[in-house]
Amino acid sequence: MTRIALLGAGLIGSFYTQALHGARSRDRVELVCSRSATNAAAFAAKWGVERWTTSIDEAVADERIDVVIVALPNDLHKQAVIAAAQAGKAVLCTKPLGRTAEEALQMLRAVEEAGVFHGYLEDLVYPPKTLKGLQSVQAGDLGRILWVRSRETHPGPHSDWFWDKERAGGGAIIDMGCHCIEIARSFIGKNVRPVEVVCWGDTQVHPIESEDHAVGMVRYEDGAIGQFEVSWAFRGGMDLRDEVAGTEGTLWMNHWLRTGMEMYTAKGTSRYVAEKSESNGGWLFPVGDEVAALGYSNMFTDMLDAIDQAREPTETFYDGYIVNAIMDASYRSIQTKRWEPIELPIWRGKKPHDDVGIVPDFDREHVLLKQERMPDGRVKLILRNKVTGELTHRFK
Amino acid sequence: MTRIALLGAGLIGSFYTQALHGARSRDRVELVCSRSATNAAAFAAKWGVERWTTSIDEAVADERIDVVIVALPNDLHKQAVIAAAQAGKAVLCTKPLGRTAEEALQMLRAVEEAGVFHGYLEDLVYPPKTLKGLQSVQAGDLGRILWVRSRETHPGPHSDWFWDKERAGGGAIIDMGCHCIEIARSFIGKNVRPVEVVCWGDTQVHPIESEDHAVGMVRYEDGAIGQFEVSWAFRGGMDLRDEVAGTEGTLWMNHWLRTGMEMYTAKGTSRYVAEKSESNGGWLFPVGDEVAALGYSNMFTDMLDAIDQAREPTETFYDGYIVNAIMDASYRSIQTKRWEPIELPIWRGKKPHDDVGIVPDFDREHVLLKQERMPDGRVKLILRNKVTGELTHRFK
Amino acid sequence: MTRIALLGAGLIGSFYTQALHGARSRDRVELVCSRSATNAAAFAAKWGVERWTTSIDEAVADERIDVVIVALPNDLHKQAVIAAAQAGKAVLCTKPLGRTAEEALQMLRAVEEAGVFHGYLEDLVYPPKTLKGLQSVQAGDLGRILWVRSRETHPGPHSDWFWDKERAGGGAIIDMGCHCIEIARSFIGKNVRPVEVVCWGDTQVHPIESEDHAVGMVRYEDGAIGQFEVSWAFRGGMDLRDEVAGTEGTLWMNHWLRTGMEMYTAKGTSRYVAEKSESNGGWLFPVGDEVAALGYSNMFTDMLDAIDQAREPTETFYDGYIVNAIMDASYRSIQTKRWEPIELPIWRGKKPHDDVGIVPDFDREHVLLKQERMPDGRVKLILRNKVTGELTHRFK
Amino acid sequence: MTRIALLGAGLIGSFYTQALHGARSRDRVELVCSRSATNAAAFAAKWGVERWTTSIDEAVADERIDVVIVALPNDLHKQAVIAAAQAGKAVLCTKPLGRTAEEALQMLRAVEEAGVFHGYLEDLVYPPKTLKGLQSVQAGDLGRILWVRSRETHPGPHSDWFWDKERAGGGAIIDMGCHCIEIARSFIGKNVRPVEVVCWGDTQVHPIESEDHAVGMVRYEDGAIGQFEVSWAFRGGMDLRDEVAGTEGTLWMNHWLRTGMEMYTAKGTSRYVAEKSESNGGWLFPVGDEVAALGYSNMFTDMLDAIDQAREPTETFYDGYIVNAIMDASYRSIQTKRWEPIELPIWRGKKPHDDVGIVPDFDREHVLLKQERMPDGRVKLILRNKVTGELTHRFK
Repeated sequence: MTRIALLGAGLIGSFYTQALHGARSRDRVELVCSRSATNAAAFAAKWGVERWTTSIDEAVADERIDVVIVALPNDLHKQAVIAAAQAGKAVLCTKPLGRTAEEALQMLRAVEEAGVFHGYLEDLVYPPKTLKGLQSVQAGDLGRILWVRSRETHPGPHSDWFWDKERAGGGAIIDMGCHCIEIARSFIGKNVRPVEVVCWGDTQVHPIESEDHAVGMVRYEDGAIGQFEVSWAFRGGMDLRDEVAGTEGTLWMNHWLRTGMEMYTAKGTSRYVAEKSESNGGWLFPVGDEVAALGYSNMFTDMLDAIDQAREPTETFYDGYIVNAIMDASYRSIQTKRWEPIELPIWRGKKPHDDVGIVPDFDREHVLLKQERMPDGRVKLILRNKVTGELTHRFK
Repeated sequence: MTRIALLGAGLIGSFYTQALHGARSRDRVELVCSRSATNAAAFAAKWGVERWTTSIDEAVADERIDVVIVALPNDLHKQAVIAAAQAGKAVLCTKPLGRTAEEALQMLRAVEEAGVFHGYLEDLVYPPKTLKGLQSVQAGDLGRILWVRSRETHPGPHSDWFWDKERAGGGAIIDMGCHCIEIARSFIGKNVRPVEVVCWGDTQVHPIESEDHAVGMVRYEDGAIGQFEVSWAFRGGMDLRDEVAGTEGTLWMNHWLRTGMEMYTAKGTSRYVAEKSESNGGWLFPVGDEVAALGYSNMFTDMLDAIDQAREPTETFYDGYIVNAIMDASYRSIQTKRWEPIELPIWRGKKPHDDVGIVPDFDREHVLLKQERMPDGRVKLILRNKVTGELTHRFK
Repeated sequence: MTRIALLGAGLIGSFYTQALHGARSRDRVELVCSRSATNAAAFAAKWGVERWTTSIDEAVADERIDVVIVALPNDLHKQAVIAAAQAGKAVLCTKPLGRTAEEALQMLRAVEEAGVFHGYLEDLVYPPKTLKGLQSVQAGDLGRILWVRSRETHPGPHSDWFWDKERAGGGAIIDMGCHCIEIARSFIGKNVRPVEVVCWGDTQVHPIESEDHAVGMVRYEDGAIGQFEVSWAFRGGMDLRDEVAGTEGTLWMNHWLRTGMEMYTAKGTSRYVAEKSESNGGWLFPVGDEVAALGYSNMFTDMLDAIDQAREPTETFYDGYIVNAIMDASYRSIQTKRWEPIELPIWRGKKPHDDVGIVPDFDREHVLLKQERMPDGRVKLILRNKVTGELTHRFK
Repeated sequence: MTRIALLGAGLIGSFYTQALHGARSRDRVELVCSRSATNAAAFAAKWGVERWTTSIDEAVADERIDVVIVALPNDLHKQAVIAAAQAGKAVLCTKPLGRTAEEALQMLRAVEEAGVFHGYLEDLVYPPKTLKGLQSVQAGDLGRILWVRSRETHPGPHSDWFWDKERAGGGAIIDMGCHCIEIARSFIGKNVRPVEVVCWGDTQVHPIESEDHAVGMVRYEDGAIGQFEVSWAFRGGMDLRDEVAGTEGTLWMNHWLRTGMEMYTAKGTSRYVAEKSESNGGWLFPVGDEVAALGYSNMFTDMLDAIDQAREPTETFYDGYIVNAIMDASYRSIQTKRWEPIELPIWRGKKPHDDVGIVPDFDREHVLLKQERMPDGRVKLILRNKVTGELTHRFK
């Protein structure tokens, strides 16, 4: 059994606690901390948490606690992580790790110097479909990965502080770009170095300072592209989809709106439909098990198993720092309007392989460019002469 | 912590154990029983089960055991359940409860007379989508339920004994009809009495005695229809879908082939794709978390929580017996080629409500039959005179 | 160029005219006939039809007309068809042909005795998907057809007369069952004799005499089942789907609600969305080209090409009569609560083949029942001894 | 009746002829021209075309011809268009108009100076779904358009010349980017000026000089983004999808792989499935009516109706030139790695509106940032003080 202190009593804290206590698990949140005594007490009552406090220092110092979970607004991550590390506690931090790579690096150094376990709570690499998809990709079913599109868009965040550029550290990129960047990176390979990024971002709709819509492309050293699409201006609920293209295959994952559950209600419902749902009548698309679909269940299983087994979890603070560095470069690219290098003072991955782009011969003189069955039923081949480069076709 | 003895070391036992041990749960299978010592030992090794035996009597008598799970071929359910009941153990039995209502009734009496906890392991009322859908229906979002279609079809069962009519007690109806019948009954209301059934069944493809394809309609006392469609001759994997129609809404649930995960592989994979998948290349439809999608996780949470809380679980042996009675009538209907009454010597549900079919007035003289926007943009109303029955239309 | 007289100026007449005049076609509706002079004149003005009349006799006698299209309420089909046949005109009649097989038979005899061209306007065997699917089935891609489900459900018909049991000849079965029955028959094979039917029908919701919901199963001589599902009580728009199961494959066709076009509008639209759509806001599912999706375009191409080429069209009055005979038996089955024979005084199809159910040998002693990849990656075979019937399994 | 000369006897010529002759139309291809006499004769025989020639000059000079369709390789468009214009013929040119904006501009000037009708054959703004979607957008159902993603990817083109960078003028961008750019532009508004573009392109897989994968973002003067994604390295068939996001709604259109027709065949088929399909067995996704789904039917109806009615068609050479200018800037951006201005020596559109981004007041002091139903059922509002910018939340 793991005894947990939760810092932060907001919606994300509720999701975390639901996942941790869910399905008869042996782990417990035993202490919750919120600046507001009212919120802390209410949260403790609702989720059956034994103790509450308004002091982070008290929470991280509690001797009955094994693990500290940081589920606070972005501007408080660094302080809370450093406090937990100095108290010698295992520390799990919600996404994004920092508001900048500089903050993230300080947190990474703090946990590594203290020698404590650290997990980066990037839930969206843990949904069941993503885990199964990653296995397929790692087994080579899709060949070499060429391009990943990861998209998260909805009408905007739940918490007021997230609309404040200073406290959040940015807008839709900081909020959801961190998810999409790490999803793409996981499929392309976490050992492959991200090299540069070009990004568009704008405040198209809301009366705020941060960007409410952005699209970026991250180029990796092996030529793969990780494309992220984030918006706080999307209408129709939440769109949460990943697309992966490889030389030998394709993988499409839809996590939210079109996952096999469709409901029409003429009279409407006054109940909750699904996170970020915008309608309560007509055609609705509920999600069966949201906590599982968002990856929370598998994420905490991995984190707590990793602590028990004294191994690294899938996502560490190092990963959180890489993501921050990519977001930093994205924000620079919005300003400079050009591709910006991704600055990585620490890089622990491998050099790229060079087994790329080898095309097998068709015969002694040609390589095969393409083969397709035509409407008349014949199979057409496009060939390229290996010496002259001349293009010809023939029918099989 | 609950200590469990598992009778049966087949595929279903593996799924059960995976669900029971999954996600850091506190419950454990501590003893596994199989007629084959080889299988029992292999199963115990694979799943980390402490002890194994080849004797059902020894397993149910084990004092360190709280709960007995019956995951045996259908012809052994009765004997195992009675043994466990007499040993005073809580007993959970896989589907179908009996091969006939007569067998089911004997089991129901055995557990009730022994006063032990009994749970019917009908996993397919527990998938996340089904639970969420049942909540919507119970909240009235769909109005009065008129019709439910529940469909499970695939190319045939895993186990050889299931193809043997005598041991299994029948074919596709006994194998999967029990699921579909209980799903429909759950949406229509478990207190509403099933009255009669008409069923078609045939051996269309396989060289066996049992039916490999069947469709039936169960009529409930309030006029609702529960339609089941089962086949061992379906091609393309497993089709697992439920459709619910109510006076105010519609609910469609797809649990397997089209749930937001799609993969194309030109080179194929040699790995397992999903239960009953027929292809290993081209377009594939993996399922993210099969154990959750099939309801096993939620089912055991309900069962073990019910034991802890000394309450009834959602599905008891009484429900298993009702399902058997409906299947008995279905098999009679195949023979007699007519609607057959469902014989229920024990019935614990309510009488039907009579708040059915009340249509609100449109004005003093008319009721509204229909309202629709036409291609020219006008809204057309069809009215019926309450006295003369005359039909007229007008445009809004 | 074909010169057409259209009898009936309702919605179906509009769809027909749109298809006939659409896409720069060379054929024209030159005369429209409606009992109401107002409607006739308005229709003629809207669709650019040269002449109008209120007299069926005048319309069918017009010498400048080649083809008469009957798009009248069901109770007027017989009279109009006989008048057109006696006037020596090619005659196309909307669905259902008659209200009963007896009426249909009289119409079939009238056109055959007059020696005029006759086409049965069963548009739903002509949607692009259905035509392509029929080609696949006829090419054997799905093996032997075992079962077809055809479903059409919506909240009720546009026209007031259709809610009148006497004028329409029935309810949802007469309205839409005729479509579903002929779709299933087309996939199973129009030469295969339909033998018997069992049907449930009820008036579940609307204050009318006719059935507003029905499900039936038609058994064909080769053992195949054609299942029809029709309802005037469905909520959420129109559900128009066909499913075909064969020994070697599966075919799913969705013609309406989920065909790749999805729209969310927070503010709603005051425009027409699609036929039978129930909502104007939230998530909507428009259909790109309704006239094509419903088969009207291909249907008239077939009909008018058939006239030009002096060949039979795909659907003749003979087909309409077969469908009526199946519906007659369905209505009898609702009353008698048993399978009812389909009475076919005229049958022009073939006797069934007897090449059914032959299972290839696995080896000298066994037939193969099933082969599947298990979660552990092994491929499991279920075998049946050809002499003893004993079932065994082995791993590949 | 329109009499047509077709220049080019390749696959696109077949699709065009099928659309022009299809569905009993009154228009005819009367003359086909191909450099190869063999191909010209074969094409004429297959499609019932009266005459053929190997001389473009002869074809455009033919007095019996009203309209010349240019369906030649890209490097021959300019010469053929100028010849047809000088011969005083109406001229329709396939996509892309030129290989560069410079070529396109010369063609535009040639037809305008000759005063002949000119249509740009951009079929993908004409699919039924796109036409219906454009109507919704133009009616304001989606509010102000913020972002359009248009994607066309497949394993590579049919024709050998298209793999030759010099003859084609580029790779995947020239081949399919022209479609995606014009689709996005049509939804954003053809009067809104495209300002600049950033583009990634690479040769990831094939042994060619052109890019086989590219993603670009076009920024319009009102802040909207048109995103194009094109690839010749996609696996799994053809992916043809458009997504439109507006302030008030969302529109998703899928034109190819998931449009309501799904087929599984265990034995495989030796027949043609659909354009660019990669598999002939397992799960397949045929398209019902390809010629309609790709927009060819509606495109030619618009073009020939426009000629008859002496009006402009939806797509003219002016549009083709705008698209070429955007592609030119995209290629520059690949080289310079920054946003590149789109150079438009001719611009006939409007200045942007300034009715953008007005957010209605919530009360005297606040604007509403967001409203959402939370899991506990309460509705949460995020407000921003209009003067101080302070963010707060409250529950309804």
